[in-house]
Amino acid sequence: MYARGYDAVGVAELCERADARRGSFYHHWTSKQALALAMLDREWERTKREVFAPTLGGDGPVRDRLDAYGRLLAERHRRRGGPVYGCRFGNLALELSAREPAVRARVEAIFDDMRRLFAGVLAEAAARGELAAGVDPDDAADTVLALMEGLQLLAKVRNDPEVIAGLGPRLRALFDEHEERT
Amino acid sequence: MYARGYDAVGVAELCERADARRGSFYHHWTSKQALALAMLDREWERTKREVFAPTLGGDGPVRDRLDAYGRLLAERHRRRGGPVYGCRFGNLALELSAREPAVRARVEAIFDDMRRLFAGVLAEAAARGELAAGVDPDDAADTVLALMEGLQLLAKVRNDPEVIAGLGPRLRALFDEHEERT
Repeated sequence: MYARGYDAVGVAELCERADARRGSFYHHWTSKQALALAMLDREWERTKREVFAPTLGGDGPVRDRLDAYGRLLAERHRRRGGPVYGCRFGNLALELSAREPAVRARVEAIFDDMRRLFAGVLAEAAARGELAAGVDPDDAADTVLALMEGLQLLAKVRNDPEVIAGLGPRLRALFDEHEERT
Repeated sequence: MYARGYDAVGVAELCERADARRGSFYHHWTSKQALALAMLDREWERTKREVFAPTLGGDGPVRDRLDAYGRLLAERHRRRGGPVYGCRFGNLALELSAREPAVRARVEAIFDDMRRLFAGVLAEAAARGELAAGVDPDDAADTVLALMEGLQLLAKVRNDPEVIAGLGPRLRALFDEHEERT
């Protein structure tokens, strides 16, 4: 479903891959949508644990942590090999937001969570005097989120995971230049 | 197809909407993919004419032109009403890039065109001394493109066209503060 999208994968195929009967699919999941929602929750827990925590959770300069976050995401895309699939939350959002309100609401909640994680480290950066003058940490969190999703989309279109590693350098203007390392 | 995505709309329904017979569909289009490619080309011509030319084509400060571009895109989403569908090129890219190489290549070419349009006005800004120190117009064009796609994705997820109008303010750091108007 990550590789090909929601519509392109039917319940029959999901059952076959999972070696399950259709009856047992509908025993566990009331619908393909219920499965998609459960997958979203599980993937978000995993992404927080494997991508956000090890990079944003440090105590170095925040710009270095955000840079590490972008580079780790790029590295994970590279390691997976094959075509760049992009962000699984963004993919499902673009495919389903306009016609599946429950999926749109769940992805919105996940993006709100991401936004809070970025806002948290940016508030830390503000408290330590790392932000450029006039940058509001809460507003800047949306810039980071939008740029990250946009870069993952471009990486998919160009089929090049390196595009994602450009996050850190593109955020440089949010930070105080006097803090700049070369 | 813009509202619901590529997979969710079959050839039978496309024919019904267009009041055409299936035979005549395959007379005009060798496949649904050929139709998608033709639609992409037509929509890109229209977007250049109706969105890019009237905003980026002026001769005022480039930051104002980019701001006008973001506000016009938001306004068009608002006028259309109903759910926010987001960027039609980004949508198709995320749905199909990993499994339809011809669609991926066409969207990549369109994004390259967009990138050149942004790079053009940013080069103009550089020549007129409007860019902040150290900002490379060509590299900044990718920042604008990624941010724009990311904001359209967030607008779709939050079902709020206003998110898109945030492009201009979020690009402020690319420009020389001494040029700043209040």
